Parts: sequence; C-alpha cells; structure tokens
Amino acid sequence: MPRTKLIIEYDGTDLAGWQRQKDHPSVQQHVEEALEAFCNSPITLHGAGRTDAGVHGLAMAAHADLPERFSPFQVQEAANHFLKPVRISIIGVEPVAEDFHARFSATQRSYRYRILNRRQPPALREGYVWHVPRPLDIAAMQEAASHLLGHHDFTSFRAADCQSKSPMKTLDHLTIREHDDEIWIEAAARSFLYNQVRIMVGTLARIGMGDWQPDDMKEILSACDRTKAGPTAPACGLYFDQVRYD
Amino acid sequence: MPRTKLIIEYDGTDLAGWQRQKDHPSVQQHVEEALEAFCNSPITLHGAGRTDAGVHGLAMAAHADLPERFSPFQVQEAANHFLKPVRISIIGVEPVAEDFHARFSATQRSYRYRILNRRQPPALREGYVWHVPRPLDIAAMQEAASHLLGHHDFTSFRAADCQSKSPMKTLDHLTIREHDDEIWIEAAARSFLYNQVRIMVGTLARIGMGDWQPDDMKEILSACDRTKAGPTAPACGLYFDQVRYD
Repeated sequence: MPRTKLIIEYDGTDLAGWQRQKDHPSVQQHVEEALEAFCNSPITLHGAGRTDAGVHGLAMAAHADLPERFSPFQVQEAANHFLKPVRISIIGVEPVAEDFHARFSATQRSYRYRILNRRQPPALREGYVWHVPRPLDIAAMQEAASHLLGHHDFTSFRAADCQSKSPMKTLDHLTIREHDDEIWIEAAARSFLYNQVRIMVGTLARIGMGDWQPDDMKEILSACDRTKAGPTAPACGLYFDQVRYD
Repeated sequence: MPRTKLIIEYDGTDLAGWQRQKDHPSVQQHVEEALEAFCNSPITLHGAGRTDAGVHGLAMAAHADLPERFSPFQVQEAANHFLKPVRISIIGVEPVAEDFHARFSATQRSYRYRILNRRQPPALREGYVWHVPRPLDIAAMQEAASHLLGHHDFTSFRAADCQSKSPMKTLDHLTIREHDDEIWIEAAARSFLYNQVRIMVGTLARIGMGDWQPDDMKEILSACDRTKAGPTAPACGLYFDQVRYD
C-alpha cells in the first residue's frame, strides 16, 4: 500500500469543511471519492488539519494509502478529472515513507486571513475576504500581535467546543501586512486550538479599530478567559495555507 | 441636474455584461435601478466602456445626472444599500462638471487579464482567471507585445461584429508580468476595438506556448486579418481596470 502525500487547494464556500459529515459534502469526502473512482478500492484520507465550513484551502496536506504504485502525475491527473464538478484541485502529489502521517508528522501549519478594509462592500471577492468597513490601524495590530508570540496558554482564543487536551500552544509567527488593497494576517504554529486563528483575528480587528489598545492583548491572553477576547472572525476570510514537514 | 461620476466594481460572472439587455440583468440596469430607488426618479447611466458577459470590473467609470445635489457619501451609501443583493459595489462617487462625459471625456482605459499558468485546475479563482495548463514563456510574450505598441491598424485583433468606424488605435501600454502565482497582462489605450484585449491575449498565449514566435506578431498585425491572430481568450480572465480623465 504505497503511501502518498497530496496537496489540496479548495474553495470552502459550498463545503461542510474538511471532515466527512453525514448530510453535506466535505473536502475529505470528495477527495476520497475521486481517489476511489480512480483506484477502484476504498480509500481513507488523513488531513494535516480540519477546517470549518467556509474556510478555504491553499495547500492543505493529506495522505492516503493507494492500492498500487501510480506515478504522482497519474494520481494528480486522475483525481483532478473526477474532481472537475467541484471546487477542489489536487495541486501536488508525492510518494512518502510508510511512517509519514499528514497530521502527526507535521511540524508547522500556517494560515492566512484576508481582510478587505474599506467602506464599500466587495463586489469581487465576496466570500473570499472579511469585509471590515471601519479603518484598521495596522501598526497597532502589529504591536498587539507581538504579545501573542511564543509559548502560552491560549484559553482566551479557544472555542468552547475545542477538543484539544491542552490549551498550551507555541505561536511561531503572527504577521500583519498590506497586500495589494487587502490586509493579510499570517499565523504559523505546530498546531492551533479550535478557532484560534479566527479569534486572534477578531481580537486584532477590535484593536485595529481602536476599541482596545495594543497592550490590552497582554491582559486578554493572561486572563485565560474566552469572553475577554474579541469575536470569532468570519470563516470566509480564512485560508489554510500550508504544512511543513521536517 | 447635478452630474455625478461613479466608480463601479463588479463581478461579471452572473451578469449579461455592462449594457442593458432585454432578458438578462446587466451592470447598467442594476446600478440605474439602485439610483432610481434612492432618487425616486428615472436615471440613465453612461459608462466609460462596455464589457461582455463574464468580464469583471475593478473601477469602471460612469456618469449620471441626479435630480438633486446629494453628498458623494450619501450617493455611495444609498446605492450600495440597494445593490446588496448583487455583486456590484460603488467604490467612488464624485461631482463632475456638466460637460463631463464618462465615455467621451476618457483619455485612457486600462484592462487587466489574469492567467493561472499551471497544470492543475483552479479550485479557488475559478471564473476569475483563465486557466492555461501549458507552460507560458513570459519573455517571449513580452517581446511579442512590444510589436503591438503605438498607432496601428488593429483589424487582426478585432471581432467580426465590432462597430468601430476605424480599426486604427493607439496602444499605450501592454505589459506582461508575474503577480503572485499568476501572469497578468495589462493593456492601456484611449480606446480599444471590440474584443481587442481578449484577442491580443489569446495571440500572446499562442506565442507563450511556443506555437508561434515573438516575431510572428509583426506579421499578424500587418496582415490586417482576424484569422491570422490567436483565439479570443475567455471573458472570465478579463477585468476592466480603470479610466483616466485629464
């Protein structure tokens, strides 16, 4: 059973998210079905992460054991053929060792969050950015973000239904920058708590709007209390970017 | 009747194009109806250009005579309120002189064309880029583009149903560059023939794929024969960018 790593781009708009659901199609289900159609045998796909409904994927990593050895090009072409009706594309395929695990071998996951910060609503990019009409102070957001870097108890940035055993996480990067006419927030860590990126973004936005000060981020973090942080930013602005393996 | 200039962003995917049609909604119809709902009187919108079904708008200019003097902010907010159900957004409003005409006063129009040049189909950005799976040689396309700059008879790059009186046009800019993982082709001229940008892009793509050489562009241009040029590139990759007024 040759183990194969897949890199997957997807438009989360009409999907139930990464993980298989009973009543709504997910990335996992579509990709498993595409591989099954091609391999003619049951396939289980293991993703590096799970994303919610509406969250997009730029280069999500996953692995599957295929019943025989195909070339990466064959797998990519065949899977993309069966994925044509949906907004999912296999953008990379690579043979990996038998002990590789997309989830457990990952050493860093990164996310991108896109904000359109202008008064006028988006006509293009609706569903692909978070529209924030109030002006955001990027320097204030950058200052606030610096307080979150490193190893902390991120309970304040954790959704109520998070299933992680521990709220301790190490945030490697959290950058805020202008990209064309958008503001991009990029975060990287070995792993994140459930909704952590969206709650960090929602909190940074409150600071960017001037409702809170950059230094308030220190108290929000040390409070270990979800109610002290800002709202969960909308799913549509979030992109699972990529996964690093050593 | 205070004359007002509007800058309009739109997603062309589900629209019949700029101009009013009998059987399918257009940008013109939606914006006129939004202004009419707000002003409570009939409005005619004059665009700087017309775009086909599927072509998007980044900053299309237009003008209308409103029945009374409103602040630009009022016009923008009210129009965007009524435009909420559709993918059209008024991103700028400005009072202009009575002799300003969005179409006839324009001194330069610019377009952007977005190509996703990779083997794998787009999952995100489907309908917003032209997917070209064969590798494109950007340097060859740049060399070919240089032959089109200046004042020429552009008959080879003119759709059969073009209604311009003359095929003579002056192309001010035609640049090809990488932007993130895409190739962007940007063109600027006082005005263009019908489908000129899409036929230029389709021809540049044939050269980029190596089917034709950069120097072939000279012969294609001088042939003054539409059948010598490449195919008309798809509408979905094309964006009406902006209009300059002196």
